[in-house]
Amino acid sequence: MELDTIAAVSTPMGEGAIAIVRLSGDEAIKISDTLFRGVGGKRLKDVPSHTIHYGQLIDPKTEEVAEEVMVSVMKGPKTFTKEDVVEINCHGGLVSVNRVLQLTLKAGARLAEPGEFTKRAFLNGRIDLSQAEAVMDLIRAKTDRAMNVALGQMEGRLSKLIQKLRQDILETLAHVEVNIDYPEYDDVEEMTHHVLLEKANHVRNEIEQLLRTSQQGKILREGLSTVIVGRPNVGKSSLLNSLVHENKAIVTDIPGTTRDVIEEYVNVRGVPLRLLDTAGIRETEDIVERIGVERSRQVLKEADLILLVLNYSDDLTIEDENIFKAVEGMDVIVIVNKTDLPQKINMDRVKELAKNYPLITTSLLEDVGVNELEEAISTLFFAGTIEASDMTYVSNSRHIALLNQALGSIEEALNGVESGVPIDIVQIDLTRTWELLGEIIGESVHESLIDQLFSQFCLGK
Amino acid sequence: MELDTIAAVSTPMGEGAIAIVRLSGDEAIKISDTLFRGVGGKRLKDVPSHTIHYGQLIDPKTEEVAEEVMVSVMKGPKTFTKEDVVEINCHGGLVSVNRVLQLTLKAGARLAEPGEFTKRAFLNGRIDLSQAEAVMDLIRAKTDRAMNVALGQMEGRLSKLIQKLRQDILETLAHVEVNIDYPEYDDVEEMTHHVLLEKANHVRNEIEQLLRTSQQGKILREGLSTVIVGRPNVGKSSLLNSLVHENKAIVTDIPGTTRDVIEEYVNVRGVPLRLLDTAGIRETEDIVERIGVERSRQVLKEADLILLVLNYSDDLTIEDENIFKAVEGMDVIVIVNKTDLPQKINMDRVKELAKNYPLITTSLLEDVGVNELEEAISTLFFAGTIEASDMTYVSNSRHIALLNQALGSIEEALNGVESGVPIDIVQIDLTRTWELLGEIIGESVHESLIDQLFSQFCLGK
Repeated sequence: MELDTIAAVSTPMGEGAIAIVRLSGDEAIKISDTLFRGVGGKRLKDVPSHTIHYGQLIDPKTEEVAEEVMVSVMKGPKTFTKEDVVEINCHGGLVSVNRVLQLTLKAGARLAEPGEFTKRAFLNGRIDLSQAEAVMDLIRAKTDRAMNVALGQMEGRLSKLIQKLRQDILETLAHVEVNIDYPEYDDVEEMTHHVLLEKANHVRNEIEQLLRTSQQGKILREGLSTVIVGRPNVGKSSLLNSLVHENKAIVTDIPGTTRDVIEEYVNVRGVPLRLLDTAGIRETEDIVERIGVERSRQVLKEADLILLVLNYSDDLTIEDENIFKAVEGMDVIVIVNKTDLPQKINMDRVKELAKNYPLITTSLLEDVGVNELEEAISTLFFAGTIEASDMTYVSNSRHIALLNQALGSIEEALNGVESGVPIDIVQIDLTRTWELLGEIIGESVHESLIDQLFSQFCLGK
Repeated sequence: MELDTIAAVSTPMGEGAIAIVRLSGDEAIKISDTLFRGVGGKRLKDVPSHTIHYGQLIDPKTEEVAEEVMVSVMKGPKTFTKEDVVEINCHGGLVSVNRVLQLTLKAGARLAEPGEFTKRAFLNGRIDLSQAEAVMDLIRAKTDRAMNVALGQMEGRLSKLIQKLRQDILETLAHVEVNIDYPEYDDVEEMTHHVLLEKANHVRNEIEQLLRTSQQGKILREGLSTVIVGRPNVGKSSLLNSLVHENKAIVTDIPGTTRDVIEEYVNVRGVPLRLLDTAGIRETEDIVERIGVERSRQVLKEADLILLVLNYSDDLTIEDENIFKAVEGMDVIVIVNKTDLPQKINMDRVKELAKNYPLITTSLLEDVGVNELEEAISTLFFAGTIEASDMTYVSNSRHIALLNQALGSIEEALNGVESGVPIDIVQIDLTRTWELLGEIIGESVHESLIDQLFSQFCLGK
């Protein structure tokens, strides 16, 4: 495929020791050579692939030194994009990295669109679409588990499963062809019917199995939207602080990372909690007051998890009961806080209201019960999940939607076989299933969808 | 020098395509080899220097794949630190980069302190102290000019000047020695007196010359603290907006950079303006009201530049006159705004008040006069400066302080020679000058100072 040469800053923006401006395309080495002054007049076009070269970047217009750099030369096809790739490592300052980028653009590179490097890896056939999507998931991963899921998908674990399913469908379609081509053999039809049922059932089960991982997959990928709700003064802020401090905001253990980077995420036993809008939590007095109002119900409805806090040292009120009503049908954990104070709450009534929600008693003041709460959160969403590292999770909404459609059409096919509809009608449903699965890995996908998908990537990837 | 092996994240923190974990030290390659699984069992210890290798990073404890990486191997002494350096390029996500860093630490590397890589480059003799300091200046540079100053210093421009001066002093000291050793020759004494005067004068002039660049050097490096002051409704916010929008906040032209990164800096013709506390400007009504109050004077006193705004379509008030009093003796530009409205202001009185301050009339509403204002700002601080790219600016406060001390002691020496004090007293002052200049480039510098200097660096550099 003939594509122009693109360039972008590939490291995060900010101040650091090193930044990378990456080029990819036929002209990557030539463009870099017009800017690079290596030791002893070395030219990048003459160096072996996968080697690193120290030198200066020169502004060709002024002939002045623009930056001191290390340049990595990697010749296609053994590169990320399968094209020639040059990485210019410069100082990690904003002026410096901008200067280097601008020089490459003036020298003939085009500014890459978001995700364009990965898109090229896909277009040039190095990875399929689900692997490309995993690259972005990996970068955005909020916990180790999420990263492992992305890593597995990037290495083609999901792709292989999908390819296997499509192969099964193709073989079944071949059987159907035989039946259509030789309708005079009765036993072929019988066999076809039998094989069809078996194969289609197998495909359906596999798709269902994948979809079963999707809730957990999505949670790992996107975090669990969590709202803390309760009357004023029951300990909502304490609970928030306790969750944040006990678990640290994710990745704050990287030295030099400031809290505000992704402060809203808290890693509770591998489950990323996205605490919805802290300010909002501080204003829950408000929410509680307007608990009958549609808008506050809306806030709650957007949550994946409700932490409902009650006061152990106070009577249940009508407000408490209203909160229970508002969260009905959702994933709720009931927390009875302030067990350090004398009991006034009617626990029998609490148990009645809590139905089968997990019920935890805590004294956040004395740090009692927090472990149990975390255990409950983890169990609620990963109950019975074997910590198998080779597990394939479906986490991407696009994949989930396609799998659901594929499930629909394979079920159509199954119903067809069972109710004895003509075999060429069944064939249509099977083909549709095959196509839908293909979209996951980027076969039979429309170009505009591909453009749209990659535009969600970050720059320089 | 025997140092342990250090590791740190060397790219800015955040989400991006690529992040780098850098190792430096004798064990850098060995440690990386315990984690790296290359294609075909390739070992990093066997690869040539300055080559790049694709592979997986394995957690040795679980034997599981931890990340997909590109590893650069650079063997000392041709590296940044003169030690063996390994750069592990991984995905630029926070979880990913943290995981890779933690693996290198578990495998035996020590987490680097801020600036420790550059400190090693200094300790191992690759660069001197002023060059090391320039590395950080380069990363933090806010404008192209500031980056060029840092680049020049990093390449040793200042170092060479200082070394030359020290050499001159050493030669002079040699002359003095001759005089002390052979006091019986009268003509030697005469010659010594003559040479001493000439040489010391030369050294003094050079130091003075360097110090003359220091105001501009500091402005380029740190930005010009600027306060916009004026009565309510004279157009302070318009002026702020005009400066920000006309010039863009620095480096916002890097695609993907959000404004808030360094929003407060505005690049006016190469002069980085640091607009003091926008919120504060919005509250200047306050400042004006309390113009007699000590605290508001304090805010003004911290500024390098005052933009004093008056209303062309209104009479001068006692408030306006008070503002002039408050900023007396400072660098002030007077802006008479709203020339699109009928004149009411008494321009003769304005000129009287403005004395020799630059006086600009503007209609910010109609975008008139902004160019003149920018010109005035540039002229005020870079008047008569030749845009010589090979100019050596002194910009670092430590250097400026040392140069001032050196100037003091060379003047002592000169006075001594002129007033005929014994030559061995002059010798002491000369030696002191030589030592002070040495401290700039890191010779005869105390270890604790070095520690303190490098601790101001960013991590991974």
